[in-house]
Order: sequence, then C-alpha cells, then structure tokens
Amino acid sequence: MDLNGHTIQGFTASAVAAGLKNDEALDLALIFSEREATAAGVFTTNKVKAAPVILCQEHIGNGRARAIIANAGNANACNGKAGLRAARLTADLVARELGIRPEEVLVASTGVIGQTLDMGTIAGAIPGLVKALSPHGVSLAAQAIMTTDSFPKISLFEGKGGGRPYHILGISKGAGMIMPNMATMLAFIMSDVGIDSASLREALLSSVDKTFNRISVDGDTSTNDMVLCMANGMAGNTSLSESDKRNFRHGLDTVMDDLARMIVRDGEGATKVIHVDLKGASSPSDALNAARTVANSILVKTACYGQDPNWGRIMAALGRAEIIMDEERVEIWVGDVQIVEAGVGKGIDAEKMAKEKMSQDEFTLTIDLHQGEYSDRITTCDLSHEYITINAEYRT
Amino acid sequence: MDLNGHTIQGFTASAVAAGLKNDEALDLALIFSEREATAAGVFTTNKVKAAPVILCQEHIGNGRARAIIANAGNANACNGKAGLRAARLTADLVARELGIRPEEVLVASTGVIGQTLDMGTIAGAIPGLVKALSPHGVSLAAQAIMTTDSFPKISLFEGKGGGRPYHILGISKGAGMIMPNMATMLAFIMSDVGIDSASLREALLSSVDKTFNRISVDGDTSTNDMVLCMANGMAGNTSLSESDKRNFRHGLDTVMDDLARMIVRDGEGATKVIHVDLKGASSPSDALNAARTVANSILVKTACYGQDPNWGRIMAALGRAEIIMDEERVEIWVGDVQIVEAGVGKGIDAEKMAKEKMSQDEFTLTIDLHQGEYSDRITTCDLSHEYITINAEYRT
Repeated sequence: MDLNGHTIQGFTASAVAAGLKNDEALDLALIFSEREATAAGVFTTNKVKAAPVILCQEHIGNGRARAIIANAGNANACNGKAGLRAARLTADLVARELGIRPEEVLVASTGVIGQTLDMGTIAGAIPGLVKALSPHGVSLAAQAIMTTDSFPKISLFEGKGGGRPYHILGISKGAGMIMPNMATMLAFIMSDVGIDSASLREALLSSVDKTFNRISVDGDTSTNDMVLCMANGMAGNTSLSESDKRNFRHGLDTVMDDLARMIVRDGEGATKVIHVDLKGASSPSDALNAARTVANSILVKTACYGQDPNWGRIMAALGRAEIIMDEERVEIWVGDVQIVEAGVGKGIDAEKMAKEKMSQDEFTLTIDLHQGEYSDRITTCDLSHEYITINAEYRT
Repeated sequence: MDLNGHTIQGFTASAVAAGLKNDEALDLALIFSEREATAAGVFTTNKVKAAPVILCQEHIGNGRARAIIANAGNANACNGKAGLRAARLTADLVARELGIRPEEVLVASTGVIGQTLDMGTIAGAIPGLVKALSPHGVSLAAQAIMTTDSFPKISLFEGKGGGRPYHILGISKGAGMIMPNMATMLAFIMSDVGIDSASLREALLSSVDKTFNRISVDGDTSTNDMVLCMANGMAGNTSLSESDKRNFRHGLDTVMDDLARMIVRDGEGATKVIHVDLKGASSPSDALNAARTVANSILVKTACYGQDPNWGRIMAALGRAEIIMDEERVEIWVGDVQIVEAGVGKGIDAEKMAKEKMSQDEFTLTIDLHQGEYSDRITTCDLSHEYITINAEYRT
C-alpha cells in the first residue's frame, strides 16, 4: 500500500460501487494484508451493537486478522439474527475469495439502522472488489466508507523501530462518537511494523482514549463505531524495545489525533472546530466530565455558531456537570482573551475581542476551575442550521 | 385576584415596563398576598445559582411569604456579591413599599446571565408596581415574566376542602428544565386554601416531580429555575382532611401539568409536542433514564422535526442509556402504529403509517423494554431550524 511515495508493505486495498448508496458512489471497501497481521479493535459502548461489531469482537479475540471489509449505506444494525447471518456470510465470502479463513476477516458497516442488508448486492460485488486490490487503493477505500462526510480522511506516520523504518496509515469516516443518521465513526489503521498483539492492543486503547474518545459532535454514540488496527511485520524489524514501543504509540497517537480532528472539522453542518481546554479540576474525572458537559451543551454549540461569547452558558453547563466547583473561582478565556474572572464577566470590551476570536474557523475555550491540578481537553464543533437540515431531512 | 370570574381571595398582582427588556414590553411583575401565606419553593439543581435563587432559599426557609417580585431581561446570575446585594435590595425596596418585612419577599429573575442588574431602573419602578396592584393583574404578570415565550401561560383549578371552595392559580414561563438563552423556567402558584407549610411543601415537591421534572426542551438546566407556591388561607376553610389534601395535590398536579405542557408547546422553535412513554423497565430509575435519554437525543428530536419514523435513533439512544435492556425484546410504537417488534423494524408500510402520525402537532412514542413493570413518561419537543436561529443569533 502506498501514499505519497510512502509504502506500507504487504497491504493492498480496493473499493467498488456495489449499489448500497443511492448515488452510485463507491460504497464497499476492502483492505488486505498478504501476511497474517496482529490486530486489535475498539468498539462502541452502545448496548445496541450492530451485527458487524458483534462479529468483529468474535474474530479479533485471538489478536490476529488479515482483511477488513467495510460497507457504507447500511449499518446492518437492529436486523436481529438475520443481520448477524449477513455479517457472517460477508466474512465467509471475502475469505473464500481471498483464500483465507473467515475468522481472519473483520467486517464494518455504516449507514441506516434497521434496513436489511442486501446480501445479493454484496456477494455480487466481492469478486470484483478482491480483483481490484492494489497497493494504490487506499484513497478509494477512504472514499468508499464516507457517508455524510464531505472529504476522505487519511493520515500517515513514518517511524523507525527494531532497526527498520515503518509506516502507520489510517483512514476514517465521521462524524463523532456519535450517531448522526449515516455517520458512525469508523477508523482502520494499517502498519507494516512487527509488534506483538498485546502491545498493539495496549497502544490502540491508549490512543483511542486520547483521540477519538476526546471528540464530540452531537453526544450520541453509534451502534457501529469501531477502530481496527492491523500490523503485519513486513517492515522486517526485530522485536521492539520499550523506546521503540513509545515511538510507535506516539505514531499511533499522531495518526489518530489527525483523523479525529478531521472528523470534527467535517462534523455534520460544522462551521467551526472548538477545543474545550479544562484546567484546575480536583480530579481527572471532574476534568473530563466538565469538558464534556461544556462541549456537548447545545447552547454553547449554538453560541459558537453565532460567534457569541455568551459565557453564561458555559457557567451554567459547568454548574450542572457533576463536579466540584466554586462559581467564584472560575476563569474563562476565548483564545487568549479572558472573559470571566472570579466567576464574573470581564465586560463588553473583553467580549468584543472574544467575539473576534470566535470568528475564526478554530479556537480554544479555556476554563480554569481553580480546584486542583487536573486537566483535560475535548474537541467539538458548533451546531448549525445545516446540522438540522442534514438530520431532519435524511431518509425522507 | 380573579381570572374568568374565578377569585383567588386576598391576592393582587401587577406588572410594569421598567425598561429591562429592549422592546419596552412589560418586564417587572409583582404578586402580593394581603395576608401572610404559607409558602414553598423548588429551585434549580445547578451549582451555579443565580442571586435570586440564593435569596429565595434563605427567605422561604420558615415556610412563609407574602410577595413575589420577578423581572425578565436579566438573570442576575454570575454577578458575584454585587448580584446578591442587588437581589437583597430588591426585596428590601418591595418590602418597604408594601409595608411588610424583607424576609416575606421572594425574588425571581430571568434573562441574560452575567450582566449587572440595573438597580436604578428597578428601584424607580417599584412604587408604580405596588400602586398598580390589582385583583385583575395576574394576566399582566404572566406577560411580564415572558422572555422567548410566545404566549403567557396561566392555569386555574377550582377545588373544595375543609368545607370551603378554593382556587389554585398558576403562571409560568418557559422553556424547559433548561437554559435556552433567555428561557429559564419560572412558575408561581397562588391559592387561597388554608394549608400548613409542611403539607404545602410536600405537595409542591411531589407535583414538580411529576410535571416540571418530566419535561425537557434541550437538556440544559438553568441557573435560575424556580417554582414558588403561596397559600394564604383566605378561602376560610378549616384544616384539611387527608382526603382534602389528596384533592389539593390533585389540583396542584393539574395546574402544574397544564403549565408544563404549555412550556413544551412553546419550547424554542418547537413545532411538535412529543410524549415519550417508557414501559417495561426493570426499575423506576431505568424507566426515567431511558425516557430522558430518548427525549433529549437531538437525533430523535431532529427526526421528529423531519417527521421521520427513524426508529434506529431510538434504539441507539436506548443502547447508550445506562439501563438494563435486551435489544431483541424492544417494541416501539408511534401513536398506535407499531414500528419495532422484537428489536426489528416492522417494515415500510408501518413506517409510512407512523410518518402520518408524526405529521400531527402532538404524538406519543411508546417504548416497551419488556424487562419489568416500571414505566415513566417525558414530554419534549422537536429540534428545528428556528431553535438554532433563536439561540445562535441572540445577544448579537
């Protein structure tokens, strides 16, 4: 697999327009490792899990995989036993065509919940999909998994470990930790590094927690969210030292942070990326909880859309978060402009300058609770008219 | 105080345009009981409490009150010690003008957070406000407390207890348990019944839990929410029997349920009232939690706006609620049309009929988890373009 002259050895990818989307766009993607790879996955915490999520959790149990097939246009969720049979059949058909075992195939879906997956269409498309596998196919695969996304999301990291250079390449689709109609979050990460599956799994969990678990578009969690990672060792490195592993984790963080930011930027109807930087919390969970409550408040999000430094909405969100806080200690900044000091507004001039900052495409809301030393950060987007249009008019 | 020929004895009310709103509308309201009344209040759970909330909690501690002064246009929240001084001064000035003690005055505010309350304006308006007190003033008071509300909210109940007829009259403003920009929820209930303050408090808490705590517009909790109730005993009843108290509680429920429905109907940008009826939960808290999660999901709300029976969003909301559930047992109806059976969609024809139901101004989403015998109900509204306009363009 290559991208901009960078090669992730032993991986190929492809995409076809099978006919699952209405507009004849690419909708079925395949990623294949010519060698068995160590594999790890992180899946939605929603109790209602789509069939492919259940299947992947089963298949990835042994820490190994060779292929990922992903369709857009249909989530294959809430389809009962028939849904699980369809996911299983998809893995079987791909395995047969690739000459590998079904347990080595991971399946992902994104799209409408509760509509029967047209297995005829998928079965018919699989031979062509396998035939199209190519080292140059990753951009097409990134396109095929898009739903309401407006651009494909790809990120690359180049590292060195165990005496050899290696690459980490990720693709993803949006838009959040969330379930806007057709916008489950999927991410697939491929690397040619050689790494044991326990270390890979540990690195993936840590990266997800720092990146995809720190973004939010609308606070809804999808039935289909998954992050899958395969590393096939074709870089030829010896086993990784602790420092090499740190470097790999850094690379994974970089790629996933990159993808996460792209997801927020491409959030449904989003016009702005907002970083909520929470400082001075009395515990790590307070820091996260406060940042999340502010980032998910639709009143804060609409104020950001309107470029209105309406800090009262931030104070009110903090007040309903279940955290230790004292109104009179709170400080708030928009960018480097302080608008709240000791819980009280800094006045019209400060708000005018803050409004100017909010006219930018990306800005930071910094909140200091002055309760302790813990901090956290959530990246979110604003809530616009376009979001309502996308989500009210979909399916109709 | 009278309304449509019904008299709530011993109460008068008034309103003036003091100049706190931009458009010279009524913005300052006063309610007065000529006799000391038993009183009870329920206040926001937000840790950031507006100054009038703090003051009321202090003044209502002894279960007695005689007056409520309420302003719209300024929340007097996040104004630090100066805010509390302003609320206290307001009570002092009203008390002096009425010839009562400051502790007998309750103060309520709604409007923008973090702007200094113009005490000159309020002080200047109080004499005229007291002079205007009249038995016919309650409709004006209901108008004066409106912010983004599109109509005044008044409800009346006629009861009998302790050998005498009595009335319960409530006014309120919207829009929710929430803090849309200028839309704290305030409700003031007056009755001429004679009732001890412990029974009044118990009745009020129970009614709030069944009514105002069962509605939602946008999931945000205001810094200023309060429900105040005064009963002055001028109906001349003897002490209430248990059956009389039940009747009074029923009356209070009726008035507050009425006001709560009006608040949802008048939710910012709302085009539809949606009842989320949750059945078959394994515990009361599961029932409430599930109903709230569905009612607050902005994806469910935008689907309602779009009249789209997109039940996958309901399933996904249930799946992320922290409840005991089994996807395969879930049933969902829109009105009397079943769209989900055993966790799976009933197909296109059912959805077409459901869509028809969703074109109405008011409809019920019934969800049966089939896990137990507990049920609950939350009433909410849809999320429309107009909501974004109201909340993004406010203050600018």
